[in-house]
Amino acid sequence: MDKILRVNMTDLSVRTEDVPPDWAGLGGRGLTSTIVAAEVPPTCHPLGKNNKLVFAPGLLTGTMAASSGRLSAGAKSPLTGGIKESNSGGTAAKLFANLNVRALIIEGQPADDRWYSLHVDKDGVTIQEETELVGAGNFAVAEAVEARLGKKVGVLTIGPAGEWKMGSANISVKDPEGKVRSIGRGGLGAVMGSKRIKFIAVDDTGGPRVQVADPAKFKEAALRFSKTLLEHPVSGQGLPTYGTAVLVNILHEVGGLPTRNFTAGQFAEHEKISGETMHDTIVARDGKPKHPCHPGCVIQCSQVYNDKDGKYLTSGFEYETIWALGADCCISDLDDIATADHVMDDIGVDSIETGVMFGVAMEAGILPFGDGKGVIRMLREEIGKGTPLGRLLGGGAAAVGRVYGITRVPVVKGQGIPAYDPRAVKGIGITYATSPMGADHTSGYTIATNVLNVGGHVDPLKKDGQVELSRNLQIATAAIDSTGMCIFIAFPALDIPDCLAALVDMINARFGISLTLEDVTNLGKRILKTEHEFNLKAGFTNEDDRLPEFFAQEPLAPHNVVWDFTPAEIDAFWNF
Amino acid sequence: MDKILRVNMTDLSVRTEDVPPDWAGLGGRGLTSTIVAAEVPPTCHPLGKNNKLVFAPGLLTGTMAASSGRLSAGAKSPLTGGIKESNSGGTAAKLFANLNVRALIIEGQPADDRWYSLHVDKDGVTIQEETELVGAGNFAVAEAVEARLGKKVGVLTIGPAGEWKMGSANISVKDPEGKVRSIGRGGLGAVMGSKRIKFIAVDDTGGPRVQVADPAKFKEAALRFSKTLLEHPVSGQGLPTYGTAVLVNILHEVGGLPTRNFTAGQFAEHEKISGETMHDTIVARDGKPKHPCHPGCVIQCSQVYNDKDGKYLTSGFEYETIWALGADCCISDLDDIATADHVMDDIGVDSIETGVMFGVAMEAGILPFGDGKGVIRMLREEIGKGTPLGRLLGGGAAAVGRVYGITRVPVVKGQGIPAYDPRAVKGIGITYATSPMGADHTSGYTIATNVLNVGGHVDPLKKDGQVELSRNLQIATAAIDSTGMCIFIAFPALDIPDCLAALVDMINARFGISLTLEDVTNLGKRILKTEHEFNLKAGFTNEDDRLPEFFAQEPLAPHNVVWDFTPAEIDAFWNF
Repeated sequence: MDKILRVNMTDLSVRTEDVPPDWAGLGGRGLTSTIVAAEVPPTCHPLGKNNKLVFAPGLLTGTMAASSGRLSAGAKSPLTGGIKESNSGGTAAKLFANLNVRALIIEGQPADDRWYSLHVDKDGVTIQEETELVGAGNFAVAEAVEARLGKKVGVLTIGPAGEWKMGSANISVKDPEGKVRSIGRGGLGAVMGSKRIKFIAVDDTGGPRVQVADPAKFKEAALRFSKTLLEHPVSGQGLPTYGTAVLVNILHEVGGLPTRNFTAGQFAEHEKISGETMHDTIVARDGKPKHPCHPGCVIQCSQVYNDKDGKYLTSGFEYETIWALGADCCISDLDDIATADHVMDDIGVDSIETGVMFGVAMEAGILPFGDGKGVIRMLREEIGKGTPLGRLLGGGAAAVGRVYGITRVPVVKGQGIPAYDPRAVKGIGITYATSPMGADHTSGYTIATNVLNVGGHVDPLKKDGQVELSRNLQIATAAIDSTGMCIFIAFPALDIPDCLAALVDMINARFGISLTLEDVTNLGKRILKTEHEFNLKAGFTNEDDRLPEFFAQEPLAPHNVVWDFTPAEIDAFWNF
Repeated sequence: MDKILRVNMTDLSVRTEDVPPDWAGLGGRGLTSTIVAAEVPPTCHPLGKNNKLVFAPGLLTGTMAASSGRLSAGAKSPLTGGIKESNSGGTAAKLFANLNVRALIIEGQPADDRWYSLHVDKDGVTIQEETELVGAGNFAVAEAVEARLGKKVGVLTIGPAGEWKMGSANISVKDPEGKVRSIGRGGLGAVMGSKRIKFIAVDDTGGPRVQVADPAKFKEAALRFSKTLLEHPVSGQGLPTYGTAVLVNILHEVGGLPTRNFTAGQFAEHEKISGETMHDTIVARDGKPKHPCHPGCVIQCSQVYNDKDGKYLTSGFEYETIWALGADCCISDLDDIATADHVMDDIGVDSIETGVMFGVAMEAGILPFGDGKGVIRMLREEIGKGTPLGRLLGGGAAAVGRVYGITRVPVVKGQGIPAYDPRAVKGIGITYATSPMGADHTSGYTIATNVLNVGGHVDPLKKDGQVELSRNLQIATAAIDSTGMCIFIAFPALDIPDCLAALVDMINARFGISLTLEDVTNLGKRILKTEHEFNLKAGFTNEDDRLPEFFAQEPLAPHNVVWDFTPAEIDAFWNF
């Protein structure tokens, strides 16, 4: 029997609830956003007792469906002030699913300053006071919980950044190797910190596992689905071979690789930080060029990156991180970036927000462009130690820009703009502007069609078709984010008709229902509208669906293009 | 012939323009807000080239009308993101009026990083590069300009805080003693810094002076007006004797003196920082208990406060400053507060924003409550030197609260809430919530009627009548702020019918027109609506007209009252 677990941190009580009929068809982002919209007052302080932090595995998580093990977290974001869903790999989603936990809702706030941990198992949740691990980094927490409770237990944890309620604080999820993946964006680690929860352990021992209504039908659909993932050149070859960093050279070529705090679209030293270079380095150092972020992923875009001595340095080393510290901060030493990635994972800060922040900090003169060693030192000695400068840097790009009076601050709704310049890849600009999440490439990844020619081609330099492209992708993504699927299934989904058909067949077989593709699309629309409505009630207006002024004022080399959408053109996004 | 001076800092050009017919009846805030609303794109970056900084003396400035020498400055505020008018005493307003300059509009932004000064005289404006005074404090600038150009020249200047574009940066105005007064609120000093103007000198030598249309009628009205100011117990006795700090004991008594970052309504050590104590200390040390902030003021609520050795320490030492560093930060040493006041004036930060910020910083653990020496040290060594911590502190209360994850942050629209707790004095809460300026006591000073029984009495602890009270006062204030009059004329205006009648008579005699009191009220309404409209276009909604959540959640001792207005009750403010 599926259930909702509810934890009240004000009185330290726990409850197990039935899944309300309205929430029955929802998982992942669809469920977290629905719960947040239903239960969190949109104008509440995101770090106060009225905010809630919700975790939910996807509709297909825990089944044999490939790449379905993503865990969604939702809350009102302290970074954007709007609704937030962010998801990650790791093992916890599958363990929640095995326990038939559809959502874990954490509400309230302790009156005193003690720290706690939550332990989720087949009997529900227990709350324990935690003293030993307060102040510890994420790797230490993951190891300590493993030592206490065993290797198979899932861990959600915050580092010092979350304890300090930094705007860039993420939530880390233990991955199959005992390292961590990140629920990165929007400062959800600060919300967990505001609830004074250092970690959540998830133990599926004796759990009921996922019941599939029609196992034979499910298996058939799952095989078809998996086949499309392996068949498509991006999910089947590009990503497994080079990881997401394959995009470095591609974005450089199209002139949309934001460089030196978004003042150029190409980075002269792009080769040094490219996916190809990363691949060769990993191979030469006996790392793993291919690696799943969660059990059952067939794409395996992750990797294990070793240092010069062949010792583990980092994993889950993504394009966006490499771009942010690389091109955007003009750092060309991949080892420096890898080291910084590891430190960010340990402190528990979002590597996109932090990288974009460093670009702004460099423009502010806090450290020089290109200073990789300086970034590592500031991560360790300032952010990692919670010094005043560290607290500011941990506040993210908007905070640093505001405090230093910088006008070139690449954020939307307070969240740092990722690795694709919206002047040169206009579709993604519509996604940045309109997504209820703030600037977020994953919420409507037009790079697929603008740059990679997946799902057709829409010229990235022209305005035509971009709003429609972003709208279709944002709707589809909202639905996909509800299944527990990795967003990279979008590549085959856009090109191979059987991919989405198989996905819908899996959902139907899992629950014994008969959804159509249109039903799934309507689910995506409903989620997006629910999120948008929350933001409007929180005080957002169309004026929040805008890129920063400098994108319209400063032409981007090499194409010398500016952001030229009118407000009315952007606002037409919501006509659906 | 009245004129508008326009300076373009992008191409370093200057223009002298006729006053457009639409602007003819406007001065002070009415003119700055009208110009900002007409010419500044509401969504522009406040520190970018599209913002404009406007200075305007009042309609009656430069005449013999008592207390009419306030100078308004307007722009889009980097602190609130909305429209801003802030005004101050000092000598510049009168000098602009003597030159028949109705407004000085500064637009654009230099492309390089040079600093400039503006020199306004009978021939217009000249722009000069400035190197010597870059980095200097306001007192040094005032002295240096005096040495260069003579004692009579007016000076508008920014300190290091304005150069660094801090959110709390003010604009200082040289006063009759060669010290400075502050255009304090909303970070307008940062806007001046973003235009790269270190100071503006105003020399009225050879200027035409103000032409009064009917001098005899004017003189008769001015005498009547002046009489009402001297007659009223607040403007005629309380303020001249004790300064605004007379309010310390009064607010303590009514339980509305925000203490320890707004966690209580009374400060046990209030006697040590009271106006009475200040008066006795000033007298004992040979200071001046009475002193005008601008030439021609008959209220003379300012003072010169000396140190223990009888040497000048500070002047213009206001209740709000003493409250902010005193009760709100639990500092009871008046000399420490006076020293801090002097340092704030020199660096160029708003003493309200900075005091409220220190209350939040103390709650964040950056320094202990009550640490007066620590505040002085942080002002000198951190804010004054632009260290990373100093930049953050200079960003104001909201910035510090955000970066340190504090939920008890007393701001509205990003601007620190002044010295009257809205739970215990509910009328002022309506002003804080609804004023287009952000939390600002001067924009609708209900303390008059809630606490001082001026203009009748509205029970401060009840909701009844507060919205109407705040509305009437905000409308009247918008009109008064357009005349160049000090807001303290509101005390006699509320109690003595001839005060406003004489004010209208003066305006009519000055311009040879025949306004009615209703015309003046309509002017106030028009100004408020213009400002509100600007904010709506900038992306504000009704949700920005709210007090922080904690005011509704945390009862305030001694009355144990919470802020209990509903959104609809607040929004009814705009029904006029």
